[in-house]
Amino acid sequence: MPSKVSVLVAGSWGTAIATVLAENKRDVTLWSRNEEQVAEINREHRNHRFLGNMELSPLIYATTSMEQALHLAEAVIVVAPSAAMREVAAQMRPFLSKDTLLIHATKGFEADSLKRMSTVLADELPEYDASSIVVLSGPSHAEEVIKQCPTTVVVASENSAAAEAAQDLLINAYFRVYTNPDVIGVEVSGALKNIIALSAGLTDGLEFGDNAKAALLTRGLAEITRLGMAMGGNPLTFAGLAGIGDLVVTCTSKHSRNWRAGFLLAQGKSLPIVLKEMGMVVEGVKTTQAAYKLSRQYEASMPIADQLYEVLFNGKAPRAAVEDLMGRGRKDEISELDSLD
Amino acid sequence: MPSKVSVLVAGSWGTAIATVLAENKRDVTLWSRNEEQVAEINREHRNHRFLGNMELSPLIYATTSMEQALHLAEAVIVVAPSAAMREVAAQMRPFLSKDTLLIHATKGFEADSLKRMSTVLADELPEYDASSIVVLSGPSHAEEVIKQCPTTVVVASENSAAAEAAQDLLINAYFRVYTNPDVIGVEVSGALKNIIALSAGLTDGLEFGDNAKAALLTRGLAEITRLGMAMGGNPLTFAGLAGIGDLVVTCTSKHSRNWRAGFLLAQGKSLPIVLKEMGMVVEGVKTTQAAYKLSRQYEASMPIADQLYEVLFNGKAPRAAVEDLMGRGRKDEISELDSLD
Repeated sequence: MPSKVSVLVAGSWGTAIATVLAENKRDVTLWSRNEEQVAEINREHRNHRFLGNMELSPLIYATTSMEQALHLAEAVIVVAPSAAMREVAAQMRPFLSKDTLLIHATKGFEADSLKRMSTVLADELPEYDASSIVVLSGPSHAEEVIKQCPTTVVVASENSAAAEAAQDLLINAYFRVYTNPDVIGVEVSGALKNIIALSAGLTDGLEFGDNAKAALLTRGLAEITRLGMAMGGNPLTFAGLAGIGDLVVTCTSKHSRNWRAGFLLAQGKSLPIVLKEMGMVVEGVKTTQAAYKLSRQYEASMPIADQLYEVLFNGKAPRAAVEDLMGRGRKDEISELDSLD
Repeated sequence: MPSKVSVLVAGSWGTAIATVLAENKRDVTLWSRNEEQVAEINREHRNHRFLGNMELSPLIYATTSMEQALHLAEAVIVVAPSAAMREVAAQMRPFLSKDTLLIHATKGFEADSLKRMSTVLADELPEYDASSIVVLSGPSHAEEVIKQCPTTVVVASENSAAAEAAQDLLINAYFRVYTNPDVIGVEVSGALKNIIALSAGLTDGLEFGDNAKAALLTRGLAEITRLGMAMGGNPLTFAGLAGIGDLVVTCTSKHSRNWRAGFLLAQGKSLPIVLKEMGMVVEGVKTTQAAYKLSRQYEASMPIADQLYEVLFNGKAPRAAVEDLMGRGRKDEISELDSLD
């Protein structure tokens, strides 16, 4: 009998992960609160709201019952939006066995508390061994994963056996999975990349060109690494798939919501107008607020995040922000990367 | 009186650097062997072969005389093709003063000897203090620099005063210059990035998608870093402008020659046919041979360069090469980045 694996929340990324598990011959359950979505997945093998007409494996079984999803599951992968993570975890608590492998694939900090997602899970699941929680991240457009395009991701856990179990669960010919012991680094880079994606939309909107965008990615990675190291992450993680890999894919895709918001801001529109026009959550806006606070709390300089904060919340003109970044005095690259300020 | 600065060889990048110096109110001399090109630059302020109709500063004075170019120059910037570097340096020797700041901005290794460009300069200029040679690199399309798009570069030298002098010479409101003490790292990453650009053309030609390309950049950076560290470079350099910055701009631009060659190879064309069709040098082809030798000499594993070598020189199908990369067993990301194999 194939092992049972459940994915919680049927967004585009959760659904894509379910297709990988189905390809790997697991017994896949996809949980969603939404009854219509569940019916659509079970009857039509589609998830129209998130993935249009893409065809899903008929092996994916959807349910609205948390108990049914978690009962006897060998592994659970949580892909809730960051704002819903605490609530979903609380719902899981009565049904989650200590023996179930717990993986999450959510990018972002919790608002206000600024906690990482594995910490939110640990808060709400006190019976579960927090050191065995696994985080999955990396450059992975959901649509490409469903089309079986070659994709590489990283799974990180303090518990190497848990990371290896996650690797075994997910790896196949088109989905290559690396392990990594650095939970903090993987979570922090996954969250902070959206700041740089928003900024990339701004520089593209201002038609600053490819040199400027490459500089933004590089210097953006440097400040993500600075804060991440101050928070306890390993610098090598930021040079890896969850760091530069995810940054590249997010900043060079015009489908990214964060990029799009930046592009609209560059047209001179104010933040409330941009958000209204887009009609959906733009993670990078909240993350910029989080980075503004965290960089002060950890005393890690983040000049790009600071300038984006001024543009988003204090009406600074995007062009003036770039000029201020370009004019920051003469710097040495290595000593900036090496130090925390 | 403004200080005199000379740029040797009027290719697209050399000419773009000359425009930065002219903007900075230097007395700029641009040297070329080609009399017609010199006449065109002086009379029409254009360099048609390399830069089409782009208008150049009338302050740029071109000459075919090496003596005239080097006489009383405060600084000289050499941007010869890697295959011509030794010859140009030998021509410079009788006229170069020990007090002239010597910068080069050439990417690549010398064929056969596999020497870095600063070593080739030092070989041919034995009277000059080799430790004061500066290398300039970073994400910088020439056309964008001439249009004054925001651009950031790095200048590296063992002699920090020389690096700072190069920074002072070039920095302005749109051209941001960072110093770095790591000559080896900057030179090695500038050369090796073309292997990854060629591979990026291959994966794009095979329509493998953005996830695969981001993975290629990330894992490509990892193997460039491995070889570069084995050769004596600082890992932080590879995470900087000359490393990931230049890699991003080269791999995401469809104007890159190396990308184009890879794209054509993916259509099933053989290397001789692709090279004939392109009618010009593709640096990444030679660099793949160099990396193949260097990775063995320094015992640094480079799986992507190895697979590209098989595709270029042993007729391996590109798709089979990617499949072999995806199927390399289960790996840990950090221990791979941390070790040299």
